[in-house]
Amino acid sequence: MLAGHRTWMFENKPVIVSTGTSGGPFEGNGKIPEDFDVLHNDIWLNEDSFEKAQKVLLEDACKAAVQKAKIQQERVQFFLGGDLINQITPTSFAAKTLGAPYLGLFGACSTSMEGLALGAFIVNHKGADCLLTGAVSHNAAVEKQFRYPTEYGSQKPPTSQWTVTGAGVALLRDQGDGPVVTSATLGRVIDMGLTDPFNMGSAMAPAAVDTIEAHLKERGVDPSYYDVIATGDLGHIGREIALDLFKKHDTSITEKQFQDCGLMIYREGQPVLAGGSGAGCSAVVTYGHLLNRMKKGEIKRLLVVATGALLSPLSYQQKETIPCIAHAVSIEVGGEG
Amino acid sequence: MLAGHRTWMFENKPVIVSTGTSGGPFEGNGKIPEDFDVLHNDIWLNEDSFEKAQKVLLEDACKAAVQKAKIQQERVQFFLGGDLINQITPTSFAAKTLGAPYLGLFGACSTSMEGLALGAFIVNHKGADCLLTGAVSHNAAVEKQFRYPTEYGSQKPPTSQWTVTGAGVALLRDQGDGPVVTSATLGRVIDMGLTDPFNMGSAMAPAAVDTIEAHLKERGVDPSYYDVIATGDLGHIGREIALDLFKKHDTSITEKQFQDCGLMIYREGQPVLAGGSGAGCSAVVTYGHLLNRMKKGEIKRLLVVATGALLSPLSYQQKETIPCIAHAVSIEVGGEG
Repeated sequence: MLAGHRTWMFENKPVIVSTGTSGGPFEGNGKIPEDFDVLHNDIWLNEDSFEKAQKVLLEDACKAAVQKAKIQQERVQFFLGGDLINQITPTSFAAKTLGAPYLGLFGACSTSMEGLALGAFIVNHKGADCLLTGAVSHNAAVEKQFRYPTEYGSQKPPTSQWTVTGAGVALLRDQGDGPVVTSATLGRVIDMGLTDPFNMGSAMAPAAVDTIEAHLKERGVDPSYYDVIATGDLGHIGREIALDLFKKHDTSITEKQFQDCGLMIYREGQPVLAGGSGAGCSAVVTYGHLLNRMKKGEIKRLLVVATGALLSPLSYQQKETIPCIAHAVSIEVGGEG
Repeated sequence: MLAGHRTWMFENKPVIVSTGTSGGPFEGNGKIPEDFDVLHNDIWLNEDSFEKAQKVLLEDACKAAVQKAKIQQERVQFFLGGDLINQITPTSFAAKTLGAPYLGLFGACSTSMEGLALGAFIVNHKGADCLLTGAVSHNAAVEKQFRYPTEYGSQKPPTSQWTVTGAGVALLRDQGDGPVVTSATLGRVIDMGLTDPFNMGSAMAPAAVDTIEAHLKERGVDPSYYDVIATGDLGHIGREIALDLFKKHDTSITEKQFQDCGLMIYREGQPVLAGGSGAGCSAVVTYGHLLNRMKKGEIKRLLVVATGALLSPLSYQQKETIPCIAHAVSIEVGGEG
């Protein structure tokens, strides 16, 4: 099972039989609206709080995945998920709606791949034959908690990022049609001493590089093995730093191959500054856009590297640095069976 | 692997080769001070915030477990843990100190057994041969976040509970001497519509009963199989409700056998109202007191059922009910090999 110190190989090839994605109006106006199963015209989603709206986004995504897999909801054996709201209440309340046994996760914006890594490990070893895993974020809920309510209209520096309103989930099974999860490399906490919460991309880039290089080494593959290596939400600035670090380390990842979910989701001209971010960012782009590109044959081997900044408003106020993490999961087509 | 819908059996019997526990002054004056590896005289632990003190508690517990196992810290392959502070920063910062690849968990006060269940699954299936898992809470950090700072001296109703200042971790290996983890049953979210955050025991009791009854059924054992079935932090009131529910369901669990970590940690006379609670409660009592009783031969088969209330101050303010969960893990001696 163990390719290296922190890489798992999934010989039994858990299958992503379906996915579900949901988004808000800003995402509907973005670059990849056709990759969402459900798009809402209003950020409130008919709820009376942004946190409740966030819960509904995740419920929407779960419902879509279950419907596309043509199974009964009761068939879902476990739900693994999380978000960035205090005590991850949107996810826990969605887990109540779903009714499945629930493992709450916290990996900030790395939660999507923490869940897929654990979920694939569980299915690979017959701990379940059908489970859901995913992550969710809501721009206004997160802004209110981490910064200022959006209604204040406060300004931000160009290094800051835009939290995605959206949820993405994958339905994993031990057999079926779909791309398979082939390996996962778990991240360790990397902290380069940065303290600016308006520049998360820079803080997270070294964690992404650390995990990607560990993955390539422990799996024993060249970067060219992957058609796309997609980070979660480094944005423009973090991506540049990661590319610089690869060059320094002689890791031959090309600019074309190295993409970022936070740079795929919005159109040129949308005011997202350095790019998209949030626990939902890598979840919606992976489970929507990237898997659709796999379906079309444009990508055969994909490594998703979800990046997370493990700070809190309080740890920032207490003048702590920003500890970061990245979890990598490989998804491939053509290896089923 | 799969005894039932949500129970895992661990045929390869992951071993708890060592544990580490730390506590504060109030715990040092409690009923089981000899079961702590590290006790601090001051709740600040020489730090300038309660959150940093909470981080140190977890670092202390990890260090103790690593030392007792006589391994190098670098030997720890993964760390699975969590706490109740927003964005679980105490655990993430401790993970940075530890340096091991890290899976952040959120299960409120059920985190200890969520971590042990996942950790045992990973070791059982050779995803690691050495990992640490645990949970931590700090009374003053949690009071400040969920209620009022302790310095305000605000009064509480007799149904409320006292958050434990303490951390407990287990070092799991694929072989060695020690009690073994034999099975785990994961909880689903149970919400009976209660809304009083000063009466968590009542809210959590049905979740504990649901998981325990599922465990007995899916594992196919009678309650008498276990010497002790210990819930995490139901307290006096929650425990009574659980016993009533067992009686109603004809589940033959005896009063003697059915214990609660929140009722084991403090002395008669300490002002803890309905009992101890917090993510650290079941962690310190299980990894300290209960495993020491196993070592002495007083307990041979133990089921720990950590209970969690998945609310937040915000979900309460938004008039949501309290969703609850319980994860059960069995620990046994005499079955090694």
